[in-house]
Amino acid sequence: MYNPYNVERLNINFKTLEEFKNFQSYGAQELSMEEDLKANIIENDSESPFYGIYFGGKLVARMSLYKISQKFDRYFEPPQDYLELWKLEVLPDYRGKGYGRALVDFAKSFNLPIKTNGRNNSHDFWDKMGFEPATYNTERDRGENPFVWFPKGVSEQTL
Amino acid sequence: MYNPYNVERLNINFKTLEEFKNFQSYGAQELSMEEDLKANIIENDSESPFYGIYFGGKLVARMSLYKISQKFDRYFEPPQDYLELWKLEVLPDYRGKGYGRALVDFAKSFNLPIKTNGRNNSHDFWDKMGFEPATYNTERDRGENPFVWFPKGVSEQTL
Repeated sequence: MYNPYNVERLNINFKTLEEFKNFQSYGAQELSMEEDLKANIIENDSESPFYGIYFGGKLVARMSLYKISQKFDRYFEPPQDYLELWKLEVLPDYRGKGYGRALVDFAKSFNLPIKTNGRNNSHDFWDKMGFEPATYNTERDRGENPFVWFPKGVSEQTL
Repeated sequence: MYNPYNVERLNINFKTLEEFKNFQSYGAQELSMEEDLKANIIENDSESPFYGIYFGGKLVARMSLYKISQKFDRYFEPPQDYLELWKLEVLPDYRGKGYGRALVDFAKSFNLPIKTNGRNNSHDFWDKMGFEPATYNTERDRGENPFVWFPKGVSEQTL
């Protein structure tokens, strides 16, 4: 499908981490990256699980993608490697312009199932993105709002 | 310690579920409870993982507590049963009056370690509650902001 935006994998350096501070979901993950960078535990410009879109040199949207191994798959049938998507966020002034969809489309392009924890009131968004709410399971989901996307031939795992 | 509020375990019935709709974090967990209640899969007034505080007959604060078994403990040393706390929320008009602290104190009264995923900008609150940020581990924490509380004799697990 046509994607009007250029989704980039974000390398970790102090400039990227500074841009991350504009996002509400800035948290333990970013603080840990900053510490590792300062302590030279990770190299400048090392690869990160973050992908983003720049507009006029400014990072305006981002998400994190993390591959979960088949042996930990409790969502999909047949069990397989899948992507966990988190921290999808578009800066307030840039919402409603398709940045979120561009990131989600990019995630889908790996053709692996995707699982995300929907934020409050995000149901309509995930529905528009072709995601479905997973059947809630307390032990697995622990208060999360799991939404899943199935590539062709994949269905929900029955727990 | 003195707790000025009466924290109650919330039984699941249609009235409680209706009150839950006032909370932002209403999601898959509550929808699933409602379906189970309608389908008579769970009984009316069955026990829930939710605890709350009423003011004038209205549920104004709530949280969910879920016991995780020692064999899944990846946070505490020595490994042990611990509580996962989620969906701590006080309705907007009732904030700043100690309801949140009352719920957290109640959770601590079980004298088990506690782990929670801090919402955006909740660092100061958890700090005041005596929680510490856990050392971030991508595989375990996957974008979460884990905060932990240690009862006496318990420390952080080194991964």
